[in-house]
Amino acid sequence: MIRFASRMELLKGSAIRELLALTAKPEIISFAGGMPAPELFPVEQMEKAANAVMEEMGQAAMQYSSTEGYVPLRQQIVDRMAAKNNIHTTVDNILVTSGSQQGLDYSGRVFLDKDDIVLIESPSYLGALNAFKTCEPRFIEVPTDDGGMIMEELEKILEKEDRVKMIYVIPDFQNPSSRTWSLERRQKFMEIINKYEIPVIEDNPYGELRFEGEAQPALKSLDTKGLVVYLGTFSKILAPGYRLGWVCADGEILDKYNFMAQAAALQASTISQMETAKWIEMYDLDAHVAKLVEVYGKRRDLMYNTMKEEFPPEVKFAKPTGGLFLWVELPEYMDAAVLAKEALKENVAYVPGEGFYPDGNTKNTFRMNYSNMPDDKIVEGVKRLAKVIKANMK
Amino acid sequence: MIRFASRMELLKGSAIRELLALTAKPEIISFAGGMPAPELFPVEQMEKAANAVMEEMGQAAMQYSSTEGYVPLRQQIVDRMAAKNNIHTTVDNILVTSGSQQGLDYSGRVFLDKDDIVLIESPSYLGALNAFKTCEPRFIEVPTDDGGMIMEELEKILEKEDRVKMIYVIPDFQNPSSRTWSLERRQKFMEIINKYEIPVIEDNPYGELRFEGEAQPALKSLDTKGLVVYLGTFSKILAPGYRLGWVCADGEILDKYNFMAQAAALQASTISQMETAKWIEMYDLDAHVAKLVEVYGKRRDLMYNTMKEEFPPEVKFAKPTGGLFLWVELPEYMDAAVLAKEALKENVAYVPGEGFYPDGNTKNTFRMNYSNMPDDKIVEGVKRLAKVIKANMK
Repeated sequence: MIRFASRMELLKGSAIRELLALTAKPEIISFAGGMPAPELFPVEQMEKAANAVMEEMGQAAMQYSSTEGYVPLRQQIVDRMAAKNNIHTTVDNILVTSGSQQGLDYSGRVFLDKDDIVLIESPSYLGALNAFKTCEPRFIEVPTDDGGMIMEELEKILEKEDRVKMIYVIPDFQNPSSRTWSLERRQKFMEIINKYEIPVIEDNPYGELRFEGEAQPALKSLDTKGLVVYLGTFSKILAPGYRLGWVCADGEILDKYNFMAQAAALQASTISQMETAKWIEMYDLDAHVAKLVEVYGKRRDLMYNTMKEEFPPEVKFAKPTGGLFLWVELPEYMDAAVLAKEALKENVAYVPGEGFYPDGNTKNTFRMNYSNMPDDKIVEGVKRLAKVIKANMK
Repeated sequence: MIRFASRMELLKGSAIRELLALTAKPEIISFAGGMPAPELFPVEQMEKAANAVMEEMGQAAMQYSSTEGYVPLRQQIVDRMAAKNNIHTTVDNILVTSGSQQGLDYSGRVFLDKDDIVLIESPSYLGALNAFKTCEPRFIEVPTDDGGMIMEELEKILEKEDRVKMIYVIPDFQNPSSRTWSLERRQKFMEIINKYEIPVIEDNPYGELRFEGEAQPALKSLDTKGLVVYLGTFSKILAPGYRLGWVCADGEILDKYNFMAQAAALQASTISQMETAKWIEMYDLDAHVAKLVEVYGKRRDLMYNTMKEEFPPEVKFAKPTGGLFLWVELPEYMDAAVLAKEALKENVAYVPGEGFYPDGNTKNTFRMNYSNMPDDKIVEGVKRLAKVIKANMK
């Protein structure tokens, strides 16, 4: 009998990836993934960028390159973080990863021994929980309200627990709740962090997808002690198929991430890095993101308004000001995972919320994505879903 | 003070990757990496394949795809393993990874808890040791001779140790020794494995790069109990910059690898997979590999013959029949890591052997790569190295 590592008992298939496999069928209206709108990908431009790479530096593009990543891409990342997140750093503080999922994986492995504590927002991104589980930590959920993590609750936990090794947060348009922290809360958070000196993983895939209001500074931009590890990604602002994200961290922490990257994967794809850097050089990422914000903002409106019209008033949800998701709370007696099966019979898919809680005990929530479906399917899908919900109301 | 996970104490920078950073300078004659010859990359063909992908399925190429990998590429992998390795399987048994380094990383994490035992050949690939170290196992080195792992020694260890969770081997043109197991040894190995039912990681990056003699069947092709996990890669037969390798395994074992892949990285690059599949469809991988074998075989001859002429007779090395490396044994009183620094002053680089032993205690060996340097640099570099060695002889 084959004996697997004990961590494998904690890893099941991700609910999202399994739903995505199901939802590959064209007749399915899927609100399940966090996928960008494919019709907005700059396919022709990317073909031109690929041609330029192959013609100017084809041999280098096909060869191994450094673990840290392609220097021109890292410089573009540095420039972008300065412009968008108020983070002022240099290429020496950047490691390019194969998507920010890999950054999450490295984060767990750099900081977490078995039974160490990781603090997360409740709910939190299930892909991060899954990545961290490979280190067999204990999760403690910090309670949240509409403004994100509640700082008094965070401090209560830190006062009590001395085995907290890292804190994982998504302060901008959180996955799955779409909540965003105010500046005051960010400042209070950094005050607490500086007092306890706990490393923070700040995951920011959605920050640039803001429909209203002012951008908030990244926690990393407020970090005076080198405690914050910032994870960025091109998946939501350009394209996920290249699998490119990055880690921005200081000194010894980034050294550890680099060692982990060498051990785990050597490097991100050379050709992905060069093509992406060339596209950014040849075209206009700001203009592209502005287009995404316009389209996703309209889809957000359409989904929110249709849900307002169609869902029973007992179903609660807030209007996100950015990001990709609407987070829905059903009456407590309903189980969103059970409902999901009925919805699938109507060819509509969403992600049940239980995976976003480490213990899986909250059953009455689900996550809806609005970036990946055209207008007519958003309306039709929400209507079908409303019917399924209504049929299950007491 | 930031507390890192205990595994981080075991991870230092890989000696190879750090040497590669040094050896990026154009004046260095580097025998250090395991890099393919860039002048043989089919750059123009790959540009055409990339264009075809963007024109036929650009949106899908830029989007997320499945964890398991792109089905047409997995079918090509299945077909190739049938033709080259006598492995007969289906796409359901293939997981595409971001290079086989990621397959090594997943292997450790699927099987190894802290203090579990992993058996390796002595010496063994340092990148694998590094990947496995993230799980904090104990390594036991199985003694080898010119024909690879000694089966009697393997059995002795298995009789005694009950915490052996996995065995890692490179039966074809091993890295670093270039030794290849005979058919008899492979059969004996499988007999032992079947008796003890221990999972085996068979790493085969170099098997197709054979200069003489007959190809040996893969262990996986002799595997009747689903115990062998086969790792393949496109890095050495096509190009490493796409970061594409694969895991071939059966049933529950492959399920675990898929769960690990979901947690660690979601998937390999969609665009890398589609471009590689398209190139294989449009062009002739067999003809390309034949060209590599011709060129690398000549370089092997040139390096071996020059070493025969230039190195003192106290320095031992065998002529490899395939792969990328010559493995060199200095007199016992010499330290190849110390010598490497002197060689670098002469602008020549190799990889000291100590990293290929988990305890780092064997100091008098080093690894020479012949695939990445043109003829004139091979001759000049070996001559300079011979001078450094001679100057350090007692």
